[in-house]
Amino acid sequence: MTARLRIALDAMGGDHAPDMVVAGADLARERCPNVSYLFVGDEAKIRALLEKHPAVKAIAEVRHTPDFVAMDAKPSQALRGGRNSSMRLAIDAVAAGDAACVVSAGNTGALMAIAKFVLKTLPGIDRPAIASFFPTLKGESVMLDLGANLECDAQNLVQFAVMGTVFSRTVLGLLEPTIGLLNVGSEEQKGHESIRQAAAALRATPLAKNFHGFVEGNDIAAGTVDVVVTDGFTGNVALKTAEGTAKLYAEFLRRTFGSSLMAKLGYLLARGAFQKLKLRTDPRRYNGAMFLGLRGVCVKSHGGTDAVGFANAISVAFNLATNQFNEKIGAELAKLQAALAAAPEGNPIAGPDTPPADPSKVAAV
Amino acid sequence: MTARLRIALDAMGGDHAPDMVVAGADLARERCPNVSYLFVGDEAKIRALLEKHPAVKAIAEVRHTPDFVAMDAKPSQALRGGRNSSMRLAIDAVAAGDAACVVSAGNTGALMAIAKFVLKTLPGIDRPAIASFFPTLKGESVMLDLGANLECDAQNLVQFAVMGTVFSRTVLGLLEPTIGLLNVGSEEQKGHESIRQAAAALRATPLAKNFHGFVEGNDIAAGTVDVVVTDGFTGNVALKTAEGTAKLYAEFLRRTFGSSLMAKLGYLLARGAFQKLKLRTDPRRYNGAMFLGLRGVCVKSHGGTDAVGFANAISVAFNLATNQFNEKIGAELAKLQAALAAAPEGNPIAGPDTPPADPSKVAAV
Repeated sequence: MTARLRIALDAMGGDHAPDMVVAGADLARERCPNVSYLFVGDEAKIRALLEKHPAVKAIAEVRHTPDFVAMDAKPSQALRGGRNSSMRLAIDAVAAGDAACVVSAGNTGALMAIAKFVLKTLPGIDRPAIASFFPTLKGESVMLDLGANLECDAQNLVQFAVMGTVFSRTVLGLLEPTIGLLNVGSEEQKGHESIRQAAAALRATPLAKNFHGFVEGNDIAAGTVDVVVTDGFTGNVALKTAEGTAKLYAEFLRRTFGSSLMAKLGYLLARGAFQKLKLRTDPRRYNGAMFLGLRGVCVKSHGGTDAVGFANAISVAFNLATNQFNEKIGAELAKLQAALAAAPEGNPIAGPDTPPADPSKVAAV
Repeated sequence: MTARLRIALDAMGGDHAPDMVVAGADLARERCPNVSYLFVGDEAKIRALLEKHPAVKAIAEVRHTPDFVAMDAKPSQALRGGRNSSMRLAIDAVAAGDAACVVSAGNTGALMAIAKFVLKTLPGIDRPAIASFFPTLKGESVMLDLGANLECDAQNLVQFAVMGTVFSRTVLGLLEPTIGLLNVGSEEQKGHESIRQAAAALRATPLAKNFHGFVEGNDIAAGTVDVVVTDGFTGNVALKTAEGTAKLYAEFLRRTFGSSLMAKLGYLLARGAFQKLKLRTDPRRYNGAMFLGLRGVCVKSHGGTDAVGFANAISVAFNLATNQFNEKIGAELAKLQAALAAAPEGNPIAGPDTPPADPSKVAAV
């Protein structure tokens, strides 16, 4: 028997868990060769579902716990009180080498707090970041941080640029992804101090050749760069603003096709083409936000997703785990550190040896 | 002859100035009863254009200056070096009582810097803010600040809420507009300190009954609240992200209708309905960002707009000037101040008597 890559699944996280977790695992199985699953949660419920998905049952182990993290729990509560929660035990399995990666559709803040506590950050990375990818005019791009760190200094932003670059190479297959720092203008004097310092630091690294400079909000969807780097507050607002705007236009489209008999007939003719568009822009296609910078692969699925969306999140985790994503981040950082070791103005991407960031600035996502 | 409301126009600001300024003034003339114009800029060019627009010529005065502010000038340069620029002289006309309001499609940062210096802020307002309105699922809403102040404290945000409320009443005709603070989650413990303090302060004012609490990026297009309050950095990114996403979907739509013969036929049938949608979502309809909080009405048009968009910006300025917008802000602030005078925890919206905000935090837009 071939060695299977085992994925730990928080079976109790998400609005439609555990049903969509098991069904999603079944869908993902077809896209992830030699995968196996460790379901963590209410064993009776999970076993009952596995009966309906015999192909999953054949590659599944179940770890029972009656506890789970509530969707509205505070991260600190979940961290202290949730030691036997399905989320915590699924992450523990990664830390123990019992699974290659973990996927959860549970409470984001709790997942980040527990993952950070259990897995720790990678050498050279001060703070993990949440990343996701998006449709653009040119294809797809990656943005980070989407909410793990509300305030970021220049060093955090440079580390995010490194992680985003490796992510873009690993998951989107781009050889030389371009990087942009999200700002309110493209001129050098614009924006917060931390962003301007990060720009200067990036220009002093080997990433300089791929650094496009500042980008603005409209550049995200335009696909001006492959990796959009920002702090977690701005990234979270931008992500949700884009989602809201997409919904608004989908609704405008629906109303327009329903507004007259001619428009309705027009829709009947164009329906095939619009179904393709719907597939292309299906938010489930973009489900699966990665927690980058941890010593272990942790993927967060949207809480309200269904089996199709959850299967996508599993695929992303599978992809990161099989492609030695974390090892590549380490190698990339080492390369940058070496190039910068003798930099006269100091090392802009120095890691854990530098004083820790102000703890008051750490997000309670 | 009836007294006419005179609008000062920076004839040289914008990519297509002065042509679109004069043509826009002609279009706006039909919507603004008893308007007259003060064109400031290159007299020969303006006079030549007025010959083509005799109805405008009849209500126009021209103030000549050969100087203008370059689109890429730094605000500080424009302020120091541009004393005879068309932008500066148009704003001076408002300060001198020679015009009721001013419209410019020139450099945003320069316009804000000069308007702030010449007109000063309203009593009780520490910082002016840029506001604009947007299409939503429910109609239209207002967001501010869109880029005048990159960092804002709680007091600034509360003052923005007051200005946004009065704006929404005056321009959108809402009696009791609801207010939301843009954040990364709706729970009380979320977000930056300044946002949480602003929420607490708003709950202690007479605006509390209209204060919805925190809203997220997706709430902007959903129309969850009528007034979205945020700092200038976040607002600018959110505005441009929404614009970029709208463009992306328009392009997806274009590609979808062109993707097959059936889809093309469908478009022919639905074309009428889509032309209505295009009108509804035409960015020119939303042209005209207001500089709120100044002792004078100043409206910024998009630099790349045409006559139709510029006419909209003129209409917005006309609307604010005829509706005593600034007087209403003053009255609303006075009402809040009175209600708060004896507040035990101090006055959360105190004006100029409080120490001035950290000047290093003022934006170079």
